[in-house]
Amino acid sequence: MSLLIIGTVAFDEVESPVGKSGRILGGAATYIGLAASLFYGDIRLASVVGDDFPGKYLKLLQDRKIDTEGIKVVPGGKTFFWSGRYHANMNLRTTLVTELNVLAGFDPVLPASYRNSRYLMLGNLTPCIQKKVIQQMSPRPDLICMDTMNFWMDTAWDDLLDVIKMVDVLAINEEEARQLSGEYSLSRASRKILAMGPRFLIVKKGEHGAILFSEDEVFIAPAMPLDEVMDPTGAGDSFAGGFMGYVAKSGDTSFETLKRALVYGSVVASFSVEKFGTSRLQEISIGDVKTRLADYVKLVCFSI
Amino acid sequence: MSLLIIGTVAFDEVESPVGKSGRILGGAATYIGLAASLFYGDIRLASVVGDDFPGKYLKLLQDRKIDTEGIKVVPGGKTFFWSGRYHANMNLRTTLVTELNVLAGFDPVLPASYRNSRYLMLGNLTPCIQKKVIQQMSPRPDLICMDTMNFWMDTAWDDLLDVIKMVDVLAINEEEARQLSGEYSLSRASRKILAMGPRFLIVKKGEHGAILFSEDEVFIAPAMPLDEVMDPTGAGDSFAGGFMGYVAKSGDTSFETLKRALVYGSVVASFSVEKFGTSRLQEISIGDVKTRLADYVKLVCFSI
Repeated sequence: MSLLIIGTVAFDEVESPVGKSGRILGGAATYIGLAASLFYGDIRLASVVGDDFPGKYLKLLQDRKIDTEGIKVVPGGKTFFWSGRYHANMNLRTTLVTELNVLAGFDPVLPASYRNSRYLMLGNLTPCIQKKVIQQMSPRPDLICMDTMNFWMDTAWDDLLDVIKMVDVLAINEEEARQLSGEYSLSRASRKILAMGPRFLIVKKGEHGAILFSEDEVFIAPAMPLDEVMDPTGAGDSFAGGFMGYVAKSGDTSFETLKRALVYGSVVASFSVEKFGTSRLQEISIGDVKTRLADYVKLVCFSI
Repeated sequence: MSLLIIGTVAFDEVESPVGKSGRILGGAATYIGLAASLFYGDIRLASVVGDDFPGKYLKLLQDRKIDTEGIKVVPGGKTFFWSGRYHANMNLRTTLVTELNVLAGFDPVLPASYRNSRYLMLGNLTPCIQKKVIQQMSPRPDLICMDTMNFWMDTAWDDLLDVIKMVDVLAINEEEARQLSGEYSLSRASRKILAMGPRFLIVKKGEHGAILFSEDEVFIAPAMPLDEVMDPTGAGDSFAGGFMGYVAKSGDTSFETLKRALVYGSVVASFSVEKFGTSRLQEISIGDVKTRLADYVKLVCFSI
């Protein structure tokens, strides 16, 4: 019943109106893994780092029962580095530095033990790399969830459509859903995108929450209103990690299960943004998630 | 148990990417009244129009059991006129024409029969007019809900704070809540605004829904995803009308009732934007509202 996560493991440096992070642990797969590990204990992670990547960070993942055999360490290589600045409106950010480093040559060959994973989360990466990962899986996972971004819509359209066709869940943000479909209405956008192949579409709307679409059902999970957002980096990945961690734990991919997974993903994301980087995800336990879930239920549930 | 509504009754002319409306019935009080009348049969409306205002429009309101004695007709006067254009992103609009006309001299003197109304909805107007209306009420209504806009924050700050202090519910949009409080986080903004006097704050987020805050509770009602928005004009007023109509019908102002009212307001607003002007509100019945409510429940409710 394993969950395989593929994506970046990186160094980040973040500035927000609240302060500066310094050089910290980042990367989509890191956030996804830490978030998923709150729910589920059989997680495998595939990525690439340089030999400048500290052993303590690998240990931090291993302590959360994440298998790191699939994190390739490139001798003499430097780890992917991203730096960005958030504005007063935290939905706006400026990328200051992107150094691909070892990520530029990333060609994942999965350890044999990874290939039978029952659930697969493809973090945002070049579409052809996402495809190569899917092709190495045997048997095909029960649920493949894919993140991507507008950059690949601009630069690798055909490759992107090719992978989208192969996955079960596509998780993208509002603007990406509009660009991918050419439709402003998210309701119409969802029908066009589901016609491209996936059974489910998740539209991530940041502080406005997330929407799950299937061919004939829709479910909205609002985001929790927060007093202070320190660092939105990785919010979408924490959401995806909480989502897939809950699905893997449930061992079921019905719409009802995915609804609950969307709620858990929203709750985990609400923790993630409270401190810089992954520090909040490192601190919390499933007990904290369940306590906040009780607040979440009050926030959205009503009787007619 | 009457509901008194005060606000503009107007002519509108709207352009959206979907088409042009021509000159149609508009105004905040019109939308609020039609929406509230879906729930409740004892509604009084106070406003001002010119003698160019067609009798058929008054009859349209009366046919919905709305008392129009308080709509003053100014002989020789012209009715308030607004014209605007919506962009592909319907959250953006350009005002093309605003002709205040008879609204410029509006000094409402409520009919004696209106003054004991149990519920009061103050549509967006000059704060000092909103205050004059409150002062004519006797006894004080059980619940006073107020709409306003950033224009009054820029031009009549002290008057505005003076009225805000006197009401129970303030219903404003996201940007207005941020401007009024000086806080970006809506959670923090709500605490500052509730400290100004109201017991409840409603933050209207358009296509992202609405949030209800009290001192110690929060509730979110997402907006329904729609295939096509033809005309967002009056969506906030339709929402407020559905909200107050439901409260008036319930005869109760507990947080639980206001939560349900928020949901009904959202459902009514989702109809309002489907056609130009008030035409959709004119067509629908409480039966249509209840049918869509069942879809709404599926959209947001889940079991853990």
